[in-house]
Amino acid sequence: MLYSFTNDYSEGCHPNILERLAETNLTQQAGYGNDQFTLESVAAIRKLCQNPEVDVHLVAGGTLANLIVISAFLKSYESVVAAETGHINNHEAGAIEATGHKVETVATPDGKLSPELIQPVLNKFPEYHTVKPRIVYISNSTEIGTIYSKEELTALSAFCKQNNLLLFMDGARLAMALAAQNNDLTLADIASLTDIFYLGATKCGGLIGEAIVIGNEALRKNFKYYIKQRGALLAKGRLFGIQYAELLRDNLMFELARHANEQAQRIAQSLQELGYTFLTQSNTNQIFPILPDSSIAELSKKYGFFVWKKMQEEYSAIRVITSWATPQEYVDQFIQDIRDLSRKLKEEASM
Amino acid sequence: MLYSFTNDYSEGCHPNILERLAETNLTQQAGYGNDQFTLESVAAIRKLCQNPEVDVHLVAGGTLANLIVISAFLKSYESVVAAETGHINNHEAGAIEATGHKVETVATPDGKLSPELIQPVLNKFPEYHTVKPRIVYISNSTEIGTIYSKEELTALSAFCKQNNLLLFMDGARLAMALAAQNNDLTLADIASLTDIFYLGATKCGGLIGEAIVIGNEALRKNFKYYIKQRGALLAKGRLFGIQYAELLRDNLMFELARHANEQAQRIAQSLQELGYTFLTQSNTNQIFPILPDSSIAELSKKYGFFVWKKMQEEYSAIRVITSWATPQEYVDQFIQDIRDLSRKLKEEASM
Amino acid sequence: MLYSFTNDYSEGCHPNILERLAETNLTQQAGYGNDQFTLESVAAIRKLCQNPEVDVHLVAGGTLANLIVISAFLKSYESVVAAETGHINNHEAGAIEATGHKVETVATPDGKLSPELIQPVLNKFPEYHTVKPRIVYISNSTEIGTIYSKEELTALSAFCKQNNLLLFMDGARLAMALAAQNNDLTLADIASLTDIFYLGATKCGGLIGEAIVIGNEALRKNFKYYIKQRGALLAKGRLFGIQYAELLRDNLMFELARHANEQAQRIAQSLQELGYTFLTQSNTNQIFPILPDSSIAELSKKYGFFVWKKMQEEYSAIRVITSWATPQEYVDQFIQDIRDLSRKLKEEASM
Amino acid sequence: MLYSFTNDYSEGCHPNILERLAETNLTQQAGYGNDQFTLESVAAIRKLCQNPEVDVHLVAGGTLANLIVISAFLKSYESVVAAETGHINNHEAGAIEATGHKVETVATPDGKLSPELIQPVLNKFPEYHTVKPRIVYISNSTEIGTIYSKEELTALSAFCKQNNLLLFMDGARLAMALAAQNNDLTLADIASLTDIFYLGATKCGGLIGEAIVIGNEALRKNFKYYIKQRGALLAKGRLFGIQYAELLRDNLMFELARHANEQAQRIAQSLQELGYTFLTQSNTNQIFPILPDSSIAELSKKYGFFVWKKMQEEYSAIRVITSWATPQEYVDQFIQDIRDLSRKLKEEASM
Repeated sequence: MLYSFTNDYSEGCHPNILERLAETNLTQQAGYGNDQFTLESVAAIRKLCQNPEVDVHLVAGGTLANLIVISAFLKSYESVVAAETGHINNHEAGAIEATGHKVETVATPDGKLSPELIQPVLNKFPEYHTVKPRIVYISNSTEIGTIYSKEELTALSAFCKQNNLLLFMDGARLAMALAAQNNDLTLADIASLTDIFYLGATKCGGLIGEAIVIGNEALRKNFKYYIKQRGALLAKGRLFGIQYAELLRDNLMFELARHANEQAQRIAQSLQELGYTFLTQSNTNQIFPILPDSSIAELSKKYGFFVWKKMQEEYSAIRVITSWATPQEYVDQFIQDIRDLSRKLKEEASM
Repeated sequence: MLYSFTNDYSEGCHPNILERLAETNLTQQAGYGNDQFTLESVAAIRKLCQNPEVDVHLVAGGTLANLIVISAFLKSYESVVAAETGHINNHEAGAIEATGHKVETVATPDGKLSPELIQPVLNKFPEYHTVKPRIVYISNSTEIGTIYSKEELTALSAFCKQNNLLLFMDGARLAMALAAQNNDLTLADIASLTDIFYLGATKCGGLIGEAIVIGNEALRKNFKYYIKQRGALLAKGRLFGIQYAELLRDNLMFELARHANEQAQRIAQSLQELGYTFLTQSNTNQIFPILPDSSIAELSKKYGFFVWKKMQEEYSAIRVITSWATPQEYVDQFIQDIRDLSRKLKEEASM
Repeated sequence: MLYSFTNDYSEGCHPNILERLAETNLTQQAGYGNDQFTLESVAAIRKLCQNPEVDVHLVAGGTLANLIVISAFLKSYESVVAAETGHINNHEAGAIEATGHKVETVATPDGKLSPELIQPVLNKFPEYHTVKPRIVYISNSTEIGTIYSKEELTALSAFCKQNNLLLFMDGARLAMALAAQNNDLTLADIASLTDIFYLGATKCGGLIGEAIVIGNEALRKNFKYYIKQRGALLAKGRLFGIQYAELLRDNLMFELARHANEQAQRIAQSLQELGYTFLTQSNTNQIFPILPDSSIAELSKKYGFFVWKKMQEEYSAIRVITSWATPQEYVDQFIQDIRDLSRKLKEEASM
Repeated sequence: MLYSFTNDYSEGCHPNILERLAETNLTQQAGYGNDQFTLESVAAIRKLCQNPEVDVHLVAGGTLANLIVISAFLKSYESVVAAETGHINNHEAGAIEATGHKVETVATPDGKLSPELIQPVLNKFPEYHTVKPRIVYISNSTEIGTIYSKEELTALSAFCKQNNLLLFMDGARLAMALAAQNNDLTLADIASLTDIFYLGATKCGGLIGEAIVIGNEALRKNFKYYIKQRGALLAKGRLFGIQYAELLRDNLMFELARHANEQAQRIAQSLQELGYTFLTQSNTNQIFPILPDSSIAELSKKYGFFVWKKMQEEYSAIRVITSWATPQEYVDQFIQDIRDLSRKLKEEASM
């Protein structure tokens, strides 16, 4: 195989991380997140959030972050509202329910929640016989590559406050969202518009790690207990601290995200020029083009990607993902191969 | 501070790991534990276990391993039996109970369980009104530095089989147990005498990771679901795979453990020669000497360690831990400082 | 108010129960379901099931029965599949999720599940990242008054066996289903076609109680532990035993259910004759006629019922429920009042 | 068998309850605790508590009450502290742990907790690695028949407030405690000194039911959700309402408890006069005399009771329980039989 576009976690991490791990390897550090590198990365995140008060906790993965946060802030009879496409609903093996809570889902056109979509979930009766929604879970970028605008997030935030709902953003690919061409949100916006969010490193230049950021002061107390209880308080916090310290130095993480986005968007643009359509209008590093099955078969000889969904006859949507490390030349080659296949198909059709 | 003996996770990891991470950084690997390095480390563990069938799963930490394993194999009304000193009973913030299960504890003289100690826990009445013990949880080395002999583990294993109990070994410091001078167990013994155990890397040369090994065939099916559901199935399995692949090459991990043990035992021997006693008879890298409070105060000016327990008047037990990375010269210095303090005390006493 | 058709638990219980409670009040009985009356009712249920082996457990309510059964037979990563209208999905305040399990829902035309509707839920990917369906939950009669035919239940049962799914029937209103005019199932059919079901007394002549019947032998062992652990093993089992003993004597319960059904169906037939339509095609004691809002307003002056759903302009569906104790004369009066209102409306319309 | 002293739930309920059930059987009542009888009993309980504000909820059993209350008020990392003899620790099949919480136990001389006994449980370290105690669970009367004095409860209440702990009293046999000769507490005292307690009917004249009383205002909001979610919100609340309404009319429940206590205490006094000792100093309806095994064998031919614990050679402690319905004449006979056996033994000994 020439190159795999299957996901954005096929490669390791940005070399700066490995260098600093090596340089500092034998310095003795306090355990469980009290090391100097974690403190350094907390400071960097607070600065980006323009808020020196936010709580920051570094944990190993997205499912872990989701289950810790959601179970920490729900009473047993309270639920979390998510898009049907939400990661917690589909791809976490029931992790949220395993902590005792219902995920209430909403069908969406684009993977995003809005006040209009959430309102019907709030209209419950009779009292005490139904779960009570308390957290709104959104992903940015979403599981299908779309992003929230500042206007959308502001409206959602206001709606949540009015309805006594907490707004929680899954940011496994938040760097890609913030680096998207049409994005108008900053990390500071997100820290103030959500109650809690996380900024993922695993999919954007790190080896492991999601930084949970608690903007809502009322949610901060004793949060570390939940991290410990769910098995996420790890002895060598330096591993997490060094990653964020390096990825946030000079905005490296967002540069890496921009690279990832650009590669996917270059592919998208070429496909569009060739007349192909897409399952979703993504602006980030995941795209879902709809291609002829014959072309898919050809491409899969050289490239890895996921066949997402059977569409109309002889067409399927595929998922193509690029990463911080995707080499430009493989993308060029992929585009060229698609163009060649398209031409060939047109020639065949015209015969 | 000259050096901290507070724990065995203050330093980073063995340099071989960092080197291999760097070398292989940009090769594309499958996610979620299907990378070549994880396969390599699984093979290495199976070889050490002398059993090509055991299931191996790499997770981030000990609490995570404990809660995944215990909750996976208990019905809701079943309990896990542990020593009062067991990690799951004291230092996991209720992680096991949070998965719905009672930890039934037994007072022990040395942190170790035996058939005689467990038998009373099995005598329950009336039926259906009490929890039903199903897993026996032991740690090797224990939380207080002791280790199981082959005879002890064989007896415990037979007892568990007779009583329909699963035997689970917490091996966060298993390398230290196996590297102890008086140890007569092999990893193959442990794989065959327990139903499930884990071999920890975090405290023995790695940055992160515990390798869960399932010897009991009946427990293997679908185990990966539990790992995913608890948030422990991480995207970049290469981080875990490379650590075990390197630490198990040429028994590196056990060499590192031997080093850690030797440093602590050198301190222990010196203290013994000076007439000091110990809270527990440890053969591994954690020792609990009882020292005069005045000496403790002096030592704490140069060294880090944990004051464990107030003992008889003017004496306390401290916990001194050495690691795979503890430099011999600091241990020499520590021993010299204790000797000097001891001499001084004797001189004062004789005045 | 003349009479409330709001639900079928407004009245007490059949007088035979109260009489036997009084007669046997001072005999000493063993506790926790080992009393003679419980034994008597277990025998009666086994006889009706034509199976002397089924396990029978009497618990206080439907939500309790649902959460005990479902949590007893699911591994933590397994889910229960239900119709969107299923009681466990809507009206149990997240009771199932509170035991750690996802309820996966399917939209249905009539509140009933079928192989065709369930199949898509089984097609999950990727392995280990999604919950695994294991129990199929159905209600008979359903929450909207419909019932399963023998052909439907047989097909569903076969499908479940083929797909390693357990079939669980919520029988809070099973007596009404079995007493419906178009029913062709017996309790013995249900005991053999499902793995587990319950037969409710609360809504059919009793004060309290649901009888859980375990047909699948593999599910019987140690079930009482679950009952105890969820707080459902009650000291004075006589209260439950006497109810079932009396309600099953000479098929009393099914006679009472037939009465309840007939009253609702008489109302339904009159409405149909008057040209009104229904939200669902119910054959049991719950009907959902669609009436003009003006008539609803008039009727609500004399009768209790639930306004279920706003329909097309100036029309709403209401829920009318009759019980084992609903007096024939109030039903006659209700029908008469509807006829009068209908005539009045037609007169007004023709003016 | 002449009579069973095995427990206090062998008989049915006070006849007043059955009469009122019969009288009111066909009146239509609102469901789920909104019936007039429940309202009547809530008013009666508020009056006895001398507090018109307390929340009252009627549930079916003690384990259910315990698990609802404890899980409602604990965050996931918080624990409940109980005496080792506490019902939640021993005889609820892990019901509390099944809701996700650790029960931390304290050895006690008499089944009662005190500030001195609880203090050590509060001294935890390191922060975040251990569970955090939040509820103190006590039983009155205790599982071994002892009761709390006003002084003891006042001290415990003050200690809890100082330490941010909630005080929860299991009152499955609270009527017996309040009816004990040496009792100096009122229900109003208990309502003001605890945060939450329940007053049991099952063991004191009722068929089923425990009345949860929430004195602490901060704990009242939305409590009914927990009741529903745990399956304890039952359709025909009239069954519970009528029991409390009748049992609290003219203090009937406490009269019944006094009767139960007197019968046990008469037996106790006779045994004491004969020189026998007791396992615990009970003032209520459960006594634990230590008798010769030969006498126990003789007595068990005519009477039911529980052999509790093997004591010194040829002696065992038995548990004798009397109820609201225990006939005086059987107690007289039991006493006479013991006297006869004692005399016979003395005669044999003197031969």
